[in-house]
Amino acid sequence: MAERRGRRARTALQDVPVRRPEYRNLRNPFTPQTVFSDDEVAALHANALRVLQELGLKVLLPEARAVFRAAGALVDDDAEIVRLGADIVEAAVRTAPAEFTIRGGRRADDVWFGPGALVFLPGAGCPNATDRLRGRRPGSFRDFEELTTLTAGFDVMHMQNAVVEPQDVPAPVRHYATMRHQLLLTDKIPFLFARGQGQTLDGFEMLRIYRGLSHEEFATTLCTKTVINTNSPRQIDRPMAQGLLDFARHSQVLVVTPFCLLGAMAPVTVAGALSLQHAEALAGITLAQLARPGAPVMYGNFASNVDMKSGAPAFGTPEHIKATLGSGQLARHIGLPWRSSAGTAANVADAQAAQETAISAWAAVLAGANMIIHSAGWLEGGLTHSYEKLILDMEMVQIFAELCSPTAADEAEMAFAAIAEVQPGGHFFAADHTMNRFHTAFYEPLAADWSNFGQWTDAGARRADERATDIWQTRLAAYERPPAHAERLAEIDAFIARRKAEGGAPPGE
Amino acid sequence: MAERRGRRARTALQDVPVRRPEYRNLRNPFTPQTVFSDDEVAALHANALRVLQELGLKVLLPEARAVFRAAGALVDDDAEIVRLGADIVEAAVRTAPAEFTIRGGRRADDVWFGPGALVFLPGAGCPNATDRLRGRRPGSFRDFEELTTLTAGFDVMHMQNAVVEPQDVPAPVRHYATMRHQLLLTDKIPFLFARGQGQTLDGFEMLRIYRGLSHEEFATTLCTKTVINTNSPRQIDRPMAQGLLDFARHSQVLVVTPFCLLGAMAPVTVAGALSLQHAEALAGITLAQLARPGAPVMYGNFASNVDMKSGAPAFGTPEHIKATLGSGQLARHIGLPWRSSAGTAANVADAQAAQETAISAWAAVLAGANMIIHSAGWLEGGLTHSYEKLILDMEMVQIFAELCSPTAADEAEMAFAAIAEVQPGGHFFAADHTMNRFHTAFYEPLAADWSNFGQWTDAGARRADERATDIWQTRLAAYERPPAHAERLAEIDAFIARRKAEGGAPPGE
Repeated sequence: MAERRGRRARTALQDVPVRRPEYRNLRNPFTPQTVFSDDEVAALHANALRVLQELGLKVLLPEARAVFRAAGALVDDDAEIVRLGADIVEAAVRTAPAEFTIRGGRRADDVWFGPGALVFLPGAGCPNATDRLRGRRPGSFRDFEELTTLTAGFDVMHMQNAVVEPQDVPAPVRHYATMRHQLLLTDKIPFLFARGQGQTLDGFEMLRIYRGLSHEEFATTLCTKTVINTNSPRQIDRPMAQGLLDFARHSQVLVVTPFCLLGAMAPVTVAGALSLQHAEALAGITLAQLARPGAPVMYGNFASNVDMKSGAPAFGTPEHIKATLGSGQLARHIGLPWRSSAGTAANVADAQAAQETAISAWAAVLAGANMIIHSAGWLEGGLTHSYEKLILDMEMVQIFAELCSPTAADEAEMAFAAIAEVQPGGHFFAADHTMNRFHTAFYEPLAADWSNFGQWTDAGARRADERATDIWQTRLAAYERPPAHAERLAEIDAFIARRKAEGGAPPGE
Repeated sequence: MAERRGRRARTALQDVPVRRPEYRNLRNPFTPQTVFSDDEVAALHANALRVLQELGLKVLLPEARAVFRAAGALVDDDAEIVRLGADIVEAAVRTAPAEFTIRGGRRADDVWFGPGALVFLPGAGCPNATDRLRGRRPGSFRDFEELTTLTAGFDVMHMQNAVVEPQDVPAPVRHYATMRHQLLLTDKIPFLFARGQGQTLDGFEMLRIYRGLSHEEFATTLCTKTVINTNSPRQIDRPMAQGLLDFARHSQVLVVTPFCLLGAMAPVTVAGALSLQHAEALAGITLAQLARPGAPVMYGNFASNVDMKSGAPAFGTPEHIKATLGSGQLARHIGLPWRSSAGTAANVADAQAAQETAISAWAAVLAGANMIIHSAGWLEGGLTHSYEKLILDMEMVQIFAELCSPTAADEAEMAFAAIAEVQPGGHFFAADHTMNRFHTAFYEPLAADWSNFGQWTDAGARRADERATDIWQTRLAAYERPPAHAERLAEIDAFIARRKAEGGAPPGE
């Protein structure tokens, strides 16, 4: 911003140090926390293998069953059931890489996954959007544009995500609009839904073109990720199985995430739900590795409990936290990078929303999750993406990012001289030690208001969500896109025009 | 509650298991997290000792200086400065007990402090109270009664606290009203302010009477705690020094808590502020041990940063979290139980309030704090106690308490049979495994609303703080006091009448 000021302003500002925190390439500073003993983790792993071997799972895509069969699995094509021996699963897990890097449009936007990596993504998959000015509505492409723009503007959002479903764009051509927008908006890694082979291959081709890669280069360059949700319990539907095959074969990143709500699609106990989650995740990972040994995969966790009165999902609960911590143990047991989530069931960006989100986000951080999805913006258990909550959550995520920086304790930081300089009962505001550091010593809040009650009342007594409305409007207006690559854009647009003329790619085909 | 129902209702309810979580006697399930290396912790400790030896601190009470002098400290009575050699401090720390139990009115309300103990107390010291029905006002005795009653009703609030300052009770007699109310309200351990020897000894006597103890028994029975705030930097005022002497000599619990705001009363760096905090806490602990070796003391931490634009305190910030984690390392270095806090600077029970409170409470839990004060109700950095926030925070604290219970992973919990019973793509709602457990499997929320957007809208689209208003009213009306001990109460009332006739005990004398 200083660069746009005139010479005089620049000169005057020269002496004022500006705080420039590094929110990329985070490494988790915490020791992973546990809920199970090592023996229990081994027992859960064995229980999951037993589920795969004795009960198997239903795989709706014939080609996926054929891949499993070729590896020695017992396949019942009439029942569509695949039973997987532990040897097959464990051999497949061994071929999965323990770490990998997904490439962004610039090297600064590359994201590494491996032990200790801490990557935040905004809330995703929301059919609706809401903000305080326009209310709650079905997600539109404008919402998609605005919410992706808002998230792209925060360094602490390390990858793009399917923030909201643009329901006003017809499904067979929606993926052209979302991928084109992502590529032009920012150099951060875009998401791609696995909604049938047509959409997947279209997405790969757009990415290949805009990243300036040959087909050979694209085959070995990780450029995007998708989330594969198994249809818990024990089922992988056709688009998800197809996605596992296609992403693996093109060496793009798969995040295999069973959707295990305790008491609904999974057993009511944490250990039971994680047994099922682990079995399904292992099955998906195995299919990917059978399709292409060494394909980049992540272990996925999305397990919380439901309200047993209504069946509604809940987040930030004790059971959610325990399932998150246990998932980290299982992911480390098999040695793969893994994703978890923050979450809330609240319907508005109020104290419940903030509390559930902060509790569950802390749990994911403490569990050692390498990718934390839904870390900003989610409301209603993911049914709505809130502009205001996106801003409020961003504060929390930035605070986590700040905690990744080391805390020095050398002579200067220990400040003996400053303590000697200030008299008993005095204050440090004017001490040299303070004056030399105060511009950059502390995190500067994004949305928090630290003014006192009188000042706050005079300023309109506005709640955090009301203030957040101003912030997202300002951030949205201020966002600047990187320069577009005109030649590649023309090539993409020609590709899209041709594919649209061919009818696009209906989901699931 | 079931006991009050008629026979028919009781019979009908017999088959429905009721969830009875144990929220007392919590043990922290997490590994303490760190920000400093062991070498850095040793350097911080040495830096604090150097502050005490070379700079000293100002001690305004002559008797306290005399105690220090008798132990070999260098005392300058004109300047009121006490310089403490490391040998004196370290010898004193060695006489402080690593664990102790404070006695409640019943054994069930005893509270143990030692490694792993996790004790929650509500927000304290607030001059104002607020709720959505009556607005923000100076704290009154009615507020004190109501807020103590609300907290007493939650098992997860393990001790009573000075939730709000009853400003409508004259200062010289306020302590009679607050102690009498606490003793009659609940068997939980009451607080006592160290506001001069008169008030302290009055409080001890009331406690001795109502607990039915002889003077000899009271001298060795821990019945109450007080928080001693040093006047950072490097000063202990007269009432605080007197409190250190009086509580130590009567073997009542001292929580020695410097008030170190980074950049204000303490250096702007975490390591500098903790050096000062550590020096002051060690000085207070030393005075207590010199007054009575073996006196029960806790190490206190209350360090966060200020907004460098306004000087206003902030909470839940990265610097706050780091100072909290570092304080735990320093407390463990000297081997004493310790207290920390949650906190928020928000002015209303909104998303900011919840986020800052949850972030800072997690930090205190992860730091291994044995006593977490201000864990419910605080607003405005402690200037106001909010009825609604008290309820909303209680949800968070109960969730922490739930995390202290073990998570089983035996055969039954791993639920292989249930996974086998439910077909692929089915659900577990009706599984035997679920039906046998669903009444008690999950934490039941206090204030969280998990209904969907339509239901929530139909029910009035109420924010969490609005719902909390109903909850505190209901809880307040439902609270039942334990039966009063008539004889002891009469003795206390006679004592109060006599002391009032004598003019009470003006604070600070």
